[in-house]
Amino acid sequence: MEKSNGVAAEVAPAECISTIIPGWFSEISPMWPGEAHSLKVEKILFQGKSDYQNVIVFQSSTYGKVLVLDGVIQLTERDECAYQEMITHLPLCSIPNPKKVLVIGGGDGGVLREVSRHSSVEKIDICEIDKMVIDVSKQFFPEVAVGYDDPRVTLHIGDGVAFLKAVPEGTYDAVIVDSSDPIGPAQELFEKPFFRSVAKALRPGGVVCTQAESVWLHMHIIEDIVANCRQIFKGSVNYAWTSVPTYPSGVIGFMLCSTEGPAVDFKHPINPIDADYSHVNTKGPLRFYNSEIHSAAFCLPSFAKRVIESKAY
Amino acid sequence: MEKSNGVAAEVAPAECISTIIPGWFSEISPMWPGEAHSLKVEKILFQGKSDYQNVIVFQSSTYGKVLVLDGVIQLTERDECAYQEMITHLPLCSIPNPKKVLVIGGGDGGVLREVSRHSSVEKIDICEIDKMVIDVSKQFFPEVAVGYDDPRVTLHIGDGVAFLKAVPEGTYDAVIVDSSDPIGPAQELFEKPFFRSVAKALRPGGVVCTQAESVWLHMHIIEDIVANCRQIFKGSVNYAWTSVPTYPSGVIGFMLCSTEGPAVDFKHPINPIDADYSHVNTKGPLRFYNSEIHSAAFCLPSFAKRVIESKAY
Repeated sequence: MEKSNGVAAEVAPAECISTIIPGWFSEISPMWPGEAHSLKVEKILFQGKSDYQNVIVFQSSTYGKVLVLDGVIQLTERDECAYQEMITHLPLCSIPNPKKVLVIGGGDGGVLREVSRHSSVEKIDICEIDKMVIDVSKQFFPEVAVGYDDPRVTLHIGDGVAFLKAVPEGTYDAVIVDSSDPIGPAQELFEKPFFRSVAKALRPGGVVCTQAESVWLHMHIIEDIVANCRQIFKGSVNYAWTSVPTYPSGVIGFMLCSTEGPAVDFKHPINPIDADYSHVNTKGPLRFYNSEIHSAAFCLPSFAKRVIESKAY
Repeated sequence: MEKSNGVAAEVAPAECISTIIPGWFSEISPMWPGEAHSLKVEKILFQGKSDYQNVIVFQSSTYGKVLVLDGVIQLTERDECAYQEMITHLPLCSIPNPKKVLVIGGGDGGVLREVSRHSSVEKIDICEIDKMVIDVSKQFFPEVAVGYDDPRVTLHIGDGVAFLKAVPEGTYDAVIVDSSDPIGPAQELFEKPFFRSVAKALRPGGVVCTQAESVWLHMHIIEDIVANCRQIFKGSVNYAWTSVPTYPSGVIGFMLCSTEGPAVDFKHPINPIDADYSHVNTKGPLRFYNSEIHSAAFCLPSFAKRVIESKAY
């Protein structure tokens, strides 16, 4: 009877199937209490439990295939472009000629697909903790996992925190942290020691972009992330956001920071990928990103601006 | 048993109570098939059926009070600022010294509240078809309905289409069309004869802003609206969008058009309300709008830009 109220009751991770109400998937979490987004399920394609999390793939009736980790929607075929393109091109289009890029998380391969649009890039490392996410993406989301086909990509399966500690100082031009929410396996990716390792792994004037939650739901988390980043990154520290319909509150934010060195003006992209069409032949056109929406992503609603920009002083 | 799948079955309007699943409200509509946003209900405060639609007000557990018309969320206390401030200040901040403003729909009073922040305004007419919406807003949403307290406001209860036909040519500096979706009583507000009446009611170089759906869900509707507006409005024709978490897909768009006459550059506001703080004393600070987010609202994702801007030629 618990399920007759329209959402599944809170269930232990092992009972993840219970979160699939017959006919519909409802996304509930203590991260966004009192609300739930539901998608109609045509068919459940995969259910598994990795060492780290529950993994579900289903065919939805109107959003294409959907990847769910620990009950939270990670991507749908219909709107994944917004997240993948923005988390990748916001940092990479802000610096000239990125050559070495590290992706932490992002096991689905979508960020790799976007990084590989940049012809200047010579080396792409990815460190994903959960092999099941990679396998499932390759099986069910070939247009996302296509990123793994690029010969510049080296896959490391393991803990991103440990991986970064072993990286020689100043190795990367850009680090992209495509993590899930701070409750679960990604928790450490929102903490100060991790940001310190990122800063160390970047060259002077290198850039990092991390998934940084929703201004509508998580201003207190964002406030902490901004404060931490201002302590650790001595270059630019900016918050950007974008629309992603299947994420809670319909938006997701990003922290963009640069290390001390050549100045980075994130709000004015200097490396306009949309001016170079060679990547379109292999990856298809950009569906979401363009130079205008890049700059617009840094314009925040007044309620968020007051909190985030007050941290600047 | 129909309700055990997480959303109410389709029900006749008279049975609107059925759309409230015990404990949660789920928003389902053929306008966004295969998905539903749900809010946890603390208490149902009002249910009625007007001559035009079903009206429900409930106290949600995390979004404050919520107004629902014909099963569709119109506003929540937590995020109404985004919609009301953007639909109002996008047009009014784009022209110098707006004096006469007409609001079509907008019975809750939120747009009036925002219009009345502009000290240049001398006369605000509002034409709302459904008196029950006004009464319910005054009773349950005093911080929204506060717009009716302004002595510059004249309320007309009636059909906006008929009202506009009777307006002498060139009367208004700005018209704001705060309508519900094109299925239901607002249908005519998305059609060409209505846009013609709006154009006639505006002075040369006057502006209109109409609710114009979501780029993620309704590109075909938007394409039609843009094509109609380009035929009828001989000045600027632009599409803008904003984040509103409780609207389907988390965004809502606006058509902004101007009539032949002094040029209007909607993307660069010339009447920066956020520079004048006198309105803050009576209405409180702007929670969402600022001049930067005004310009950013016109930056569209590539998939929408390709469709909307191709209509320009």
